[in-house]
Amino acid sequence: MKELNTWQEEAKLIRKWCLVSTTAAGSGHPTSCLSAADITAVLFDKYFTYDISNPLNINNDRFVLSKGHAAPLLYTLFGMCNAYDLNELKTLRQLNSRFEGHPVPKYKFAEAATGSLGQGLSVGAGLALVAKREKLPYTTYVLCGDGELAEGQVWEAANFASYHRLNNLIVILDINRLAQSGETMFGHHMNEYEQRFRAFNFRVFTIDGHNYEQIVQALEQAHNHAGQQPVAIIAETIKGKGVSFVENKDGWHGKALKEEELKKALDELGNINDSIRFNLRKPTQTPAASSPINTAVRLEFDNSKTYATREIFGQALSQLTQNTPGIYVLDADVKNSTFTEDALKTTPERFVECFIAEQNMVSVGVGLSRIGKIPVMATFGAFFMRAADQIRMARVSEANIKFVGSHVGVSIGEDGPSQMALEDIAFFGALPDTVILQPCDAVSTVNLVSRMIEHSGIVYMRTLRPKTKLLYKPGEAFTIGGSTIVRQSPDDVLTVAATGITVFEALQAAELLKQENINIRIVDCYSIKPVDKQTLLNCLQATRLKCIITVEDHFEHGGMGDFIAAAIATEGDYVVKMAVTKISQSGKQDELLKDAGIDAAAIVARVKNIVQSNKPVSQLAKGNTL
Amino acid sequence: MKELNTWQEEAKLIRKWCLVSTTAAGSGHPTSCLSAADITAVLFDKYFTYDISNPLNINNDRFVLSKGHAAPLLYTLFGMCNAYDLNELKTLRQLNSRFEGHPVPKYKFAEAATGSLGQGLSVGAGLALVAKREKLPYTTYVLCGDGELAEGQVWEAANFASYHRLNNLIVILDINRLAQSGETMFGHHMNEYEQRFRAFNFRVFTIDGHNYEQIVQALEQAHNHAGQQPVAIIAETIKGKGVSFVENKDGWHGKALKEEELKKALDELGNINDSIRFNLRKPTQTPAASSPINTAVRLEFDNSKTYATREIFGQALSQLTQNTPGIYVLDADVKNSTFTEDALKTTPERFVECFIAEQNMVSVGVGLSRIGKIPVMATFGAFFMRAADQIRMARVSEANIKFVGSHVGVSIGEDGPSQMALEDIAFFGALPDTVILQPCDAVSTVNLVSRMIEHSGIVYMRTLRPKTKLLYKPGEAFTIGGSTIVRQSPDDVLTVAATGITVFEALQAAELLKQENINIRIVDCYSIKPVDKQTLLNCLQATRLKCIITVEDHFEHGGMGDFIAAAIATEGDYVVKMAVTKISQSGKQDELLKDAGIDAAAIVARVKNIVQSNKPVSQLAKGNTL
Repeated sequence: MKELNTWQEEAKLIRKWCLVSTTAAGSGHPTSCLSAADITAVLFDKYFTYDISNPLNINNDRFVLSKGHAAPLLYTLFGMCNAYDLNELKTLRQLNSRFEGHPVPKYKFAEAATGSLGQGLSVGAGLALVAKREKLPYTTYVLCGDGELAEGQVWEAANFASYHRLNNLIVILDINRLAQSGETMFGHHMNEYEQRFRAFNFRVFTIDGHNYEQIVQALEQAHNHAGQQPVAIIAETIKGKGVSFVENKDGWHGKALKEEELKKALDELGNINDSIRFNLRKPTQTPAASSPINTAVRLEFDNSKTYATREIFGQALSQLTQNTPGIYVLDADVKNSTFTEDALKTTPERFVECFIAEQNMVSVGVGLSRIGKIPVMATFGAFFMRAADQIRMARVSEANIKFVGSHVGVSIGEDGPSQMALEDIAFFGALPDTVILQPCDAVSTVNLVSRMIEHSGIVYMRTLRPKTKLLYKPGEAFTIGGSTIVRQSPDDVLTVAATGITVFEALQAAELLKQENINIRIVDCYSIKPVDKQTLLNCLQATRLKCIITVEDHFEHGGMGDFIAAAIATEGDYVVKMAVTKISQSGKQDELLKDAGIDAAAIVARVKNIVQSNKPVSQLAKGNTL
Repeated sequence: MKELNTWQEEAKLIRKWCLVSTTAAGSGHPTSCLSAADITAVLFDKYFTYDISNPLNINNDRFVLSKGHAAPLLYTLFGMCNAYDLNELKTLRQLNSRFEGHPVPKYKFAEAATGSLGQGLSVGAGLALVAKREKLPYTTYVLCGDGELAEGQVWEAANFASYHRLNNLIVILDINRLAQSGETMFGHHMNEYEQRFRAFNFRVFTIDGHNYEQIVQALEQAHNHAGQQPVAIIAETIKGKGVSFVENKDGWHGKALKEEELKKALDELGNINDSIRFNLRKPTQTPAASSPINTAVRLEFDNSKTYATREIFGQALSQLTQNTPGIYVLDADVKNSTFTEDALKTTPERFVECFIAEQNMVSVGVGLSRIGKIPVMATFGAFFMRAADQIRMARVSEANIKFVGSHVGVSIGEDGPSQMALEDIAFFGALPDTVILQPCDAVSTVNLVSRMIEHSGIVYMRTLRPKTKLLYKPGEAFTIGGSTIVRQSPDDVLTVAATGITVFEALQAAELLKQENINIRIVDCYSIKPVDKQTLLNCLQATRLKCIITVEDHFEHGGMGDFIAAAIATEGDYVVKMAVTKISQSGKQDELLKDAGIDAAAIVARVKNIVQSNKPVSQLAKGNTL
């Protein structure tokens, strides 16, 4: 085969840079890169179709590195596509380098942040689904390790891919036998992988992952098979392939070669053609589909009736989805409870049934978001915890996903604690820059669903199972970061901040208290994060007692109460919090503590700042309005 | 077959009570119970071996209801074992009934709380593993629905069960075609289930789930097969079987029959023998294995050296596991990073390799805990988020599990954000009554690992990747809820509360500040939950400024800072929090809001309490020590 030599040279250069960059970094996973060097060399040389000047060209093939610890392989592959000078790889894992230990969005050629294993096939399935539904020409490739195939999410994704007939999805399994702490469950028993992927209705090709003839034959058949099945190329490989003293050896996971070992390894590789590059096939240029957001919703309500916010969410979403071509609606077999079934009826072409597999649903959403879609996914709020790690990684990926959790809190009633979302605000709220909304009536729901769609980034909306009365009139405004004072008088004694179902409990309490001549002010904190600091501070000043009671249908720690306490902390709290407030990065321990603002120098600065004000914190801004 | 009549009568009585109890409740999932009535009738009549007077008899067979919404089936089955009067089932789903919407621990015959789907096979695998390892005679049965087979965790569990050769585990799949919102992914294509379970190395029997001959034949073979494989009995069933007008019909998931429908249904069932009961086979009585906890650990440290707390955790755990026969150690292929590999070396018989499948690992732990074991499981803290829903359900199950998360915070360095646990305190902390510990040096680690094992309930311990200096001397005491003032002087200006890696940053800051004649007090809050309120209050009083700076390697929301703010809130916070502080239950919406203390009446009481004190909250207990 005339291309054999080329592929060998390309694979050698890949190996070189995976070794050189990790040795320069002093850490990393070179052996996990080396096992996949040959197969990716052929893929990029002969098949991969990509506009290197525009990673977001909608016709680009997609390469998802599910085994994120093989990041140097990814970085080398795109470097060899002339995306950047390969020498930049020597900054691997340094602070502010785009080449982090695992891929993150500042590296523009990564389809998703990976590094928590077993998520890539789902991301790829999301990418492939859009191509299938919208008749786009690209192929999606996913490179998985063998260790990560133990993650159940992989099998959720496999079901999803075959159910949705994603014959434009090719997963390459790098079966190198060795996981982090020992042999994988199946070692090199290739039949174990074959029988599983066959059972999940994949078209399966098993090959020697270092034999170029077998590689090219498998890739050729993968592209040209006639069926509707997704393809799995199961490649038997050797971890550390190409460097004899690490090949197939335990104890070399996640270890960089020392300088002298690197020298020896490069000697073994022999003559290297440093100038060889991939000559990528160019995809068709299509103008990026503009995807205007139209958030006009027409819904009318009857003042004498009650409505469940989950139901109104469904009605509003159905209209928004019809009017905004970028919206995709994802369900985990609860569409008749979350009311996304309304969108299924009106826009089936952008409704995606994921069945009871929340992890896959979330990562499919990461794939959709990557190519500019707006995935809106709903399940019971409690069951988003099933995908907490995927949501965490969606945040690292800077995905634009709207999560709508129904059945929040104890107010769901008879189904009991397994179905109650009571830790959801704590979890979503911990992730930096997320938005958390909880409308309490139909009018605010319609408005906030639109605000949610308009917002770029992760939004979590809580919807209620029980029906509630109308609290607002059409035309009232609701904003992210806003709140509404729903009851007040000139002689309020204190403020109750409520959200969702507890707004109505607070209103009822106010009526009861009024009978005893006690007036309270009530704020509907429909925006839990960010919370409406200014309104709450105003309330503190306006009431006789400087007190806000927060009431919420959520566990105590990490709920709205903690957001409110933090927001007005400078007004009266004794506690000054120093913690991590953004997504971190690769770097040295000291650099990262400094970058996060929690190192010794930051503490020194904070202490001096407080001391120089020469007042107890508790009196810095406190009135004495007794 | 002479038993046919009996099984028919038993199945009829099962059907009756599943229908009667849900109609009495006005909600529930009768049709999901009816599809499994025949197979469970035969199972309980002919095979199930159980000491009804002692659910914790270690030789009892185990019946795990993975499809937790079929709870009335479970309640009826044990009622028919004379565990209680069947008439009590009319309290189904009422406040304080032991018969909740989904099984919870106050129902003593449930092996685990279920209701979040796809977790039961893992729980059963945990139960079966102990029987296999400790040569106990019991068989574990798991009843799964078909909808839940879409959950990836099921396939993690399937791999686990066949890898560990759990030939004492029988999973019964109730393939009734209909999920909550429509048909399942595979409907009645039984081959789809067969090929998957075969591929995952189960012994598979496919039957008509309403044909008693086939049922008994499958159960007979399942008990008598010679191999090392777990068994899957795949039963084609009809949802709502036995009641013609709901049989195999969409739209009947999670709906109780109305009174007149119930009457019609009972008419259809015909004559019912209300007095028929299961005559269970009795297991051997063995005295419950006493499992003394011995937490003596002998480790010596060199003052001139540094140690990673994760490494010391591993050494301490190895000793504890040797001395305490109830401890099982579970790993998700990171044992060389978390250092549970030490326990593998010393106590392989109680080390359980779960590979990279955290969800299954957690639910296996629930099974171990159910029969009195103390599961200690470790992975990167970030990857416990993969099993957040399982941890949530472990808490509902009142499981006694020790979670040890390594690689917490940005201090891990080069691997980047995908590997950093930064939302773990928020999540574990939201769950009621959990304990969170974070030792910062070797001495405190050894002590706190022992405290963790002694404590009954969920404990989460954070361990550090980097090495740290010795801060404590042997013999110093560390308690859950404690803290240590690691630096103080008579003229401290304020207090820094730190935990883990930030203790050392704070100490360094103190040295720098001292050069400017600013003294600070430093508290090592190694117990994050509960936090040491009294010591912090004392510090507030003892320092010139009434101020505590909290510094932690965790995201801002939901971290240690929020625990500390909440703990000293009565001392100066303007915010009074009302939220859910315990695991809730089944009941009516109003009852549950009241039970949780967040309803109108509770708000009224709180407001009046504050008003009657006749002071601004901010001055209720505040000194003026400027």
